[in-house]
Amino acid sequence: MHPFKLFSGSSHPALAQEVCQHLGLPLSRSETKLFSNENLCVRIDDSVRGQDCVVIQTASPPLHTHMMELFILCDTLRAYGARSICAVIPYFPYVRSDKRDVPGVGIVARLVADLVETSGATSALLLDLHSRQAQGFFRMPTFAVSAHQTLVGYLRGCDLTDAVLVSPDAGEVKDIVPYIASLNLPLAIIDKRRYDDTETAHVVRMVGDVVGKTAILIDDEIASGGTICSAAESLLACGAARVWALCTHPVLSGQAVERMAASPLERLIVTNSVPVPPHKMLSKLVVLSIAPVLAEAILGQFA
Amino acid sequence: MHPFKLFSGSSHPALAQEVCQHLGLPLSRSETKLFSNENLCVRIDDSVRGQDCVVIQTASPPLHTHMMELFILCDTLRAYGARSICAVIPYFPYVRSDKRDVPGVGIVARLVADLVETSGATSALLLDLHSRQAQGFFRMPTFAVSAHQTLVGYLRGCDLTDAVLVSPDAGEVKDIVPYIASLNLPLAIIDKRRYDDTETAHVVRMVGDVVGKTAILIDDEIASGGTICSAAESLLACGAARVWALCTHPVLSGQAVERMAASPLERLIVTNSVPVPPHKMLSKLVVLSIAPVLAEAILGQFA
Amino acid sequence: MHPFKLFSGSSHPALAQEVCQHLGLPLSRSETKLFSNENLCVRIDDSVRGQDCVVIQTASPPLHTHMMELFILCDTLRAYGARSICAVIPYFPYVRSDKRDVPGVGIVARLVADLVETSGATSALLLDLHSRQAQGFFRMPTFAVSAHQTLVGYLRGCDLTDAVLVSPDAGEVKDIVPYIASLNLPLAIIDKRRYDDTETAHVVRMVGDVVGKTAILIDDEIASGGTICSAAESLLACGAARVWALCTHPVLSGQAVERMAASPLERLIVTNSVPVPPHKMLSKLVVLSIAPVLAEAILGQFA
Amino acid sequence: MHPFKLFSGSSHPALAQEVCQHLGLPLSRSETKLFSNENLCVRIDDSVRGQDCVVIQTASPPLHTHMMELFILCDTLRAYGARSICAVIPYFPYVRSDKRDVPGVGIVARLVADLVETSGATSALLLDLHSRQAQGFFRMPTFAVSAHQTLVGYLRGCDLTDAVLVSPDAGEVKDIVPYIASLNLPLAIIDKRRYDDTETAHVVRMVGDVVGKTAILIDDEIASGGTICSAAESLLACGAARVWALCTHPVLSGQAVERMAASPLERLIVTNSVPVPPHKMLSKLVVLSIAPVLAEAILGQFA
Amino acid sequence: MHPFKLFSGSSHPALAQEVCQHLGLPLSRSETKLFSNENLCVRIDDSVRGQDCVVIQTASPPLHTHMMELFILCDTLRAYGARSICAVIPYFPYVRSDKRDVPGVGIVARLVADLVETSGATSALLLDLHSRQAQGFFRMPTFAVSAHQTLVGYLRGCDLTDAVLVSPDAGEVKDIVPYIASLNLPLAIIDKRRYDDTETAHVVRMVGDVVGKTAILIDDEIASGGTICSAAESLLACGAARVWALCTHPVLSGQAVERMAASPLERLIVTNSVPVPPHKMLSKLVVLSIAPVLAEAILGQFA
Amino acid sequence: MHPFKLFSGSSHPALAQEVCQHLGLPLSRSETKLFSNENLCVRIDDSVRGQDCVVIQTASPPLHTHMMELFILCDTLRAYGARSICAVIPYFPYVRSDKRDVPGVGIVARLVADLVETSGATSALLLDLHSRQAQGFFRMPTFAVSAHQTLVGYLRGCDLTDAVLVSPDAGEVKDIVPYIASLNLPLAIIDKRRYDDTETAHVVRMVGDVVGKTAILIDDEIASGGTICSAAESLLACGAARVWALCTHPVLSGQAVERMAASPLERLIVTNSVPVPPHKMLSKLVVLSIAPVLAEAILGQFA
Repeated sequence: MHPFKLFSGSSHPALAQEVCQHLGLPLSRSETKLFSNENLCVRIDDSVRGQDCVVIQTASPPLHTHMMELFILCDTLRAYGARSICAVIPYFPYVRSDKRDVPGVGIVARLVADLVETSGATSALLLDLHSRQAQGFFRMPTFAVSAHQTLVGYLRGCDLTDAVLVSPDAGEVKDIVPYIASLNLPLAIIDKRRYDDTETAHVVRMVGDVVGKTAILIDDEIASGGTICSAAESLLACGAARVWALCTHPVLSGQAVERMAASPLERLIVTNSVPVPPHKMLSKLVVLSIAPVLAEAILGQFA
Repeated sequence: MHPFKLFSGSSHPALAQEVCQHLGLPLSRSETKLFSNENLCVRIDDSVRGQDCVVIQTASPPLHTHMMELFILCDTLRAYGARSICAVIPYFPYVRSDKRDVPGVGIVARLVADLVETSGATSALLLDLHSRQAQGFFRMPTFAVSAHQTLVGYLRGCDLTDAVLVSPDAGEVKDIVPYIASLNLPLAIIDKRRYDDTETAHVVRMVGDVVGKTAILIDDEIASGGTICSAAESLLACGAARVWALCTHPVLSGQAVERMAASPLERLIVTNSVPVPPHKMLSKLVVLSIAPVLAEAILGQFA
Repeated sequence: MHPFKLFSGSSHPALAQEVCQHLGLPLSRSETKLFSNENLCVRIDDSVRGQDCVVIQTASPPLHTHMMELFILCDTLRAYGARSICAVIPYFPYVRSDKRDVPGVGIVARLVADLVETSGATSALLLDLHSRQAQGFFRMPTFAVSAHQTLVGYLRGCDLTDAVLVSPDAGEVKDIVPYIASLNLPLAIIDKRRYDDTETAHVVRMVGDVVGKTAILIDDEIASGGTICSAAESLLACGAARVWALCTHPVLSGQAVERMAASPLERLIVTNSVPVPPHKMLSKLVVLSIAPVLAEAILGQFA
Repeated sequence: MHPFKLFSGSSHPALAQEVCQHLGLPLSRSETKLFSNENLCVRIDDSVRGQDCVVIQTASPPLHTHMMELFILCDTLRAYGARSICAVIPYFPYVRSDKRDVPGVGIVARLVADLVETSGATSALLLDLHSRQAQGFFRMPTFAVSAHQTLVGYLRGCDLTDAVLVSPDAGEVKDIVPYIASLNLPLAIIDKRRYDDTETAHVVRMVGDVVGKTAILIDDEIASGGTICSAAESLLACGAARVWALCTHPVLSGQAVERMAASPLERLIVTNSVPVPPHKMLSKLVVLSIAPVLAEAILGQFA
Repeated sequence: MHPFKLFSGSSHPALAQEVCQHLGLPLSRSETKLFSNENLCVRIDDSVRGQDCVVIQTASPPLHTHMMELFILCDTLRAYGARSICAVIPYFPYVRSDKRDVPGVGIVARLVADLVETSGATSALLLDLHSRQAQGFFRMPTFAVSAHQTLVGYLRGCDLTDAVLVSPDAGEVKDIVPYIASLNLPLAIIDKRRYDDTETAHVVRMVGDVVGKTAILIDDEIASGGTICSAAESLLACGAARVWALCTHPVLSGQAVERMAASPLERLIVTNSVPVPPHKMLSKLVVLSIAPVLAEAILGQFA
Repeated sequence: MHPFKLFSGSSHPALAQEVCQHLGLPLSRSETKLFSNENLCVRIDDSVRGQDCVVIQTASPPLHTHMMELFILCDTLRAYGARSICAVIPYFPYVRSDKRDVPGVGIVARLVADLVETSGATSALLLDLHSRQAQGFFRMPTFAVSAHQTLVGYLRGCDLTDAVLVSPDAGEVKDIVPYIASLNLPLAIIDKRRYDDTETAHVVRMVGDVVGKTAILIDDEIASGGTICSAAESLLACGAARVWALCTHPVLSGQAVERMAASPLERLIVTNSVPVPPHKMLSKLVVLSIAPVLAEAILGQFA
């Protein structure tokens, strides 16, 4: 008998399958149906009484339907007597809503953590949260893993002569710190400010030296791609030789693919923490698998 | 100062406005934005510290986005110090998942009740739940109201000579009981059974007398319309003179509108517990407003 | 060492012993004393630290003393470090108080579920709840079993030619649905209504055909027997050849035994979910044991 | 409008009425019915939405039925939206089970406190708990009052020349400490020990001087009366001139009344924290009302 | 692999080591650093995922720093996935604050129990609480052990001819009850009262016979030593031949060591439930190890 | 009557008094005693039943004693029936432990938030948390205020010609973002890296231009002062004309005062969120009062 059972939601079956292959474990059987009134019917087809269970679900579109599927999966495993339920959420929903950005908004990532716990999850496995503090939003045990080694491993196979690591935003420089430590490369920052109260016009100052260099933008996720693409343009305008970007989560929402295609950005290195469907697979996109990292972390909990 | 504040999610602004008019109260200000990555940004623009608050949201499409908006609204009101938060949910999500219909599924309506409470709601106002037991899924105080008087009031204005109330399913006869009590009309039941294990073929026996009568089907909701339309056909085949249907929640999902249009059903009487968009407004559809019932129940809590 | 320990309250020791025999397990030792001030002293005499435990207690008289004994048993097992506590409650207390029947009353079955959880139970095993929705009153995992196969098995050994299944109340027709599915028999309903506001006088309409037939009344419990006995009389008055009744829980409270004895009801088939003391053992009463069903369900949790 | 509403369970309506008179408040309307299956139906007939509520119930027989009535009352008030619920429990159930007296038993008073909180009470008013530590069993706010002034007030009207206060048990001397402080009387202790392991035979040593004195036994409750009556005999045997006893809670269970009648005990001074029915009203019994103390404490919470 | 892991805080490493030796178990690795801003950094250096863990920490100075270290240890074990966490707290903090001694104070021992549970402990092992009721302050399973056998074992090796056991305070006589039962010695009580409202002047009456006897004072702890030292003087003044004292917890705070040294107290028998540093090791002090009792109790939970 | 009551712990009475003056409110009476065994006795001397209460306590030394005093204050207010308890914690304990900095450590700030909630606080008022995400560690409503306007107001009164804002650490650049937005000054970063694995030796690169400028270091707190003092030296070595530092919390622990005195740092601008005792009042230290900001925020909750 396997020491634990692994279930997958509908958000990223390929990743779940890949994790199972690394674990040498069959995916446990469940079925999710979507009725015409949008209600999900989630059915667990393996016995879970007294079993340790793992559920893999990531925050891919349709986002809220996938979240509800995760909640129902956890609740159903709990109701049928699972001993423990580890929610593996490679890309965590609402992870950028981790503080009160403007008055009148809440910290939705904390709410999501509460909802996951209420649904019955007893632990969580998380990957490269936007801020590491967000791990503290959970009361239950959490295990945080990083795509850092995966991404750094890729970079180490590249020519990094005259490379500089660039933070696209002064407020997010902390993301770059582990990379400058691992790769021992210089650092630059794009200090982007509004002229006035209008939202659209900015003045950009480059803090640090990028002239003639391979500028590698570092971020945790690429959503609509606006920040990264305008950063790429600013870097070239400031004399950078070429621009790459590196991030864990290829959300690629809205006009992201079109923007990326049109952008002078030369290469975009990401992981498969969210699925990249074929129509989004630009030739400049490099997708590294996070499955080995997840499989090892899951194994660490039950070995 | 008003004794309480009323906020509306995006699911049914017309109903929220109508409730406000009945209450003589302005709708409190909040804004919901949907980003390209599907994340909602919900912002409360009125101070709620120490205030009693009411949130109206119904289970209309996109269902899970509206649920998450409700969760975020409640959580935000809580985080900014609202004294109490009453969630008014005219059509409750997943209300038909109120028991374990087949092995391996959970009771999702109970999960939703837990999620609403976790989000910070301190009471709930509910309308015609599929089963009255579901009120017990909540730990917090709940107030259940019914469209019964509204719907019965409409029928009383019609010619009910030779009318018979019909339950479309033997398992749901309880829904019809208050109607036979109020209208003192005879009762019939459509006893529909499968020939064998195949799901599609049924044999139908009519229990009770419908010949030459106005058969009025009673149900709590019409989703895809399959049950009601085939019941209407069965009733006419068994000799009914005409068929009406009466239900609280016009979900009208999937092919419901096409089915209804093509059906021999003569009239369909519903409430506005879920919005009926113009393209679903069949001429045979009668929509009665539930706003007075909700307004009165809300008032009862703060008067 | 046995994989789990089974304790019994005072409500139904014969059933607990029978379950133990099916499990090949000795009953664990505990003692309950009742002091002159009605205080119970419950003492666990087996070590339970780190053990999975099962407690059997049913809702038999004295009802509230047996409930408190169950609460104390669970709390004591918890306090001494039991790893899990499964409360087996064949007849659940207050199970008919599962909705707000009149304004001003609560849902007591939900309260009881909360009290059982507060006492320390970590799962529950339940038998034929009055409504299946009541399973959702529990937050902890629950396992619902049914006497359906036991009772249907008995009927299959009888001559069912010209038999009809009868619901004694239009509001409870759902109880009969699994029986008509299993036995493929026709269905009838007793539609009983008050003439006016006085509570005692009723007019009865028989919906469906019972003339010359063996009418088998189906209900979940027989308490005072009033409903079943007057239903039997109505059926005979409407031409039924004979009347049987079938139910899971033989509560038989108040004047039930006298009523049953005097009633034209020919046979009453029940289970031993509540003990039937010798003075209640009418010759027309058939008691089938539910112990095998409970034993199998318990085994399913720890095997 | 009154600032709060006061409800009474069935355990001690006379005390509730007396408290209401002291408060100048009508008792709010509720009704408790007991069905033949022992199920209670508790119905609240006053609106309680947003109201502060008080529930009075004491631990009198039938004990567990009265406890369940208290749980249901609190739960119903909560379900209908009471703002706060103060449980006034003059004699607290299972108050002597406040520690693990022998291995294998639990601390039932703590369990009862948990059950009261689970039922929805938000505060409790308690009278002379067996140990003051038991107040810590509650998480919610509690208010502890004492019959000390009431009982001392009575004694001060008596001739206390040559009186000595006596603890009937070395383990309970703490109960006497406030009395020796208030009355400045000498102290004696009955040090009762078993000869050997048999439970019945004891040797008694009198610690302190009682010869020729009025010995006043102090205890928190008199249940079966065994301890007090044998203490009275020991005191007379050791030379006491006469023996009185003083306690808050006249439980008087089992053979208590017969024992008291036959005992040389001259006078027994108690409060009405539990009802003393007429057939228990011995001429040597003095019952002082605790209603003014309770009324003042209730008033203190809402004034 | 060991069935469980044992961690120690900084409060009493010698006791933790001794317990480990009795268990034949290495102490698990953790490190506590104290920064200049008084913040503790507690790091667990052994993997604890899925492991049963034990944490030993006692209430020795600096008291609140040691309490916070215990909270952080439990929380960290929980956060990294320990299956269970047993907090072994030989001397429990604030144990004498177990009731509301004066109006306006809380029951701090109950608060501490709540804080320990919030921190993640899932059970507790406690030694000679000031009152046994305090065990009920915990919701989680607790195991209470006593130094009684250890201390009685020591006394049995002494000459107890003409010995009398003495309670230093009428309110604490219960502490002495198990000792008089085990040793079958007579009992005396020091009844100490204030003349008037001033706090310092007392009149002392000796209840029971001490003339010419070895008076053995029994208490649960010695803090500042004031009570015990003045009791020793009173006993000698009343004719006792010599005075010993016996208690579980040698808190020895403030001027205790100086007082003890100057006191006519001949011998003071204690355990090592709190560390006695060398400068407090008076020659009249006898320290018995509680480690075997703790080790046996810990073993009982995981054997 | 005042609409709320304000209590102060022992950590910063001057600030509490100043807040009270701004509010025109007397400080409510409580007393904290410290016994020789380090136990605190906290007594509330004002009635708080049904009252909104505010407790002010900051994280000043002795840190853990002040934390426990806060826990006891909240718990006592709760136990005596306070309606709400707002914990005002200007400098939050363990605020830098907001993520897992190294494997094996926990998120202590989250634990502290849990302990504050367990103690009974129902809301919190916080000032300039190290990371804004930490607000999400609380489940209860929290209100975050900032010393930003206070500190910026001071700077605006200074000559800022040729000033540059400097972050002392690449990982903390976000702290500086609101200041560059308010003051529209250029930005520089000290990029400090270790040569190798030894902890002490660093190489420093200045990112951005500081030559000849007034460099103003921005941080949230100054603890031991090591970071700020070595940053000041690096800035001068890189050509800065002079160096100031600006931070909210003057922790000034360990050798901070000596370091600051010896440092080339010209001016240090802080608030009184933690008390600065006279012996730490360097002439280069400017202390601005945060009391108006706190008073306004408190008022906002009860006005």
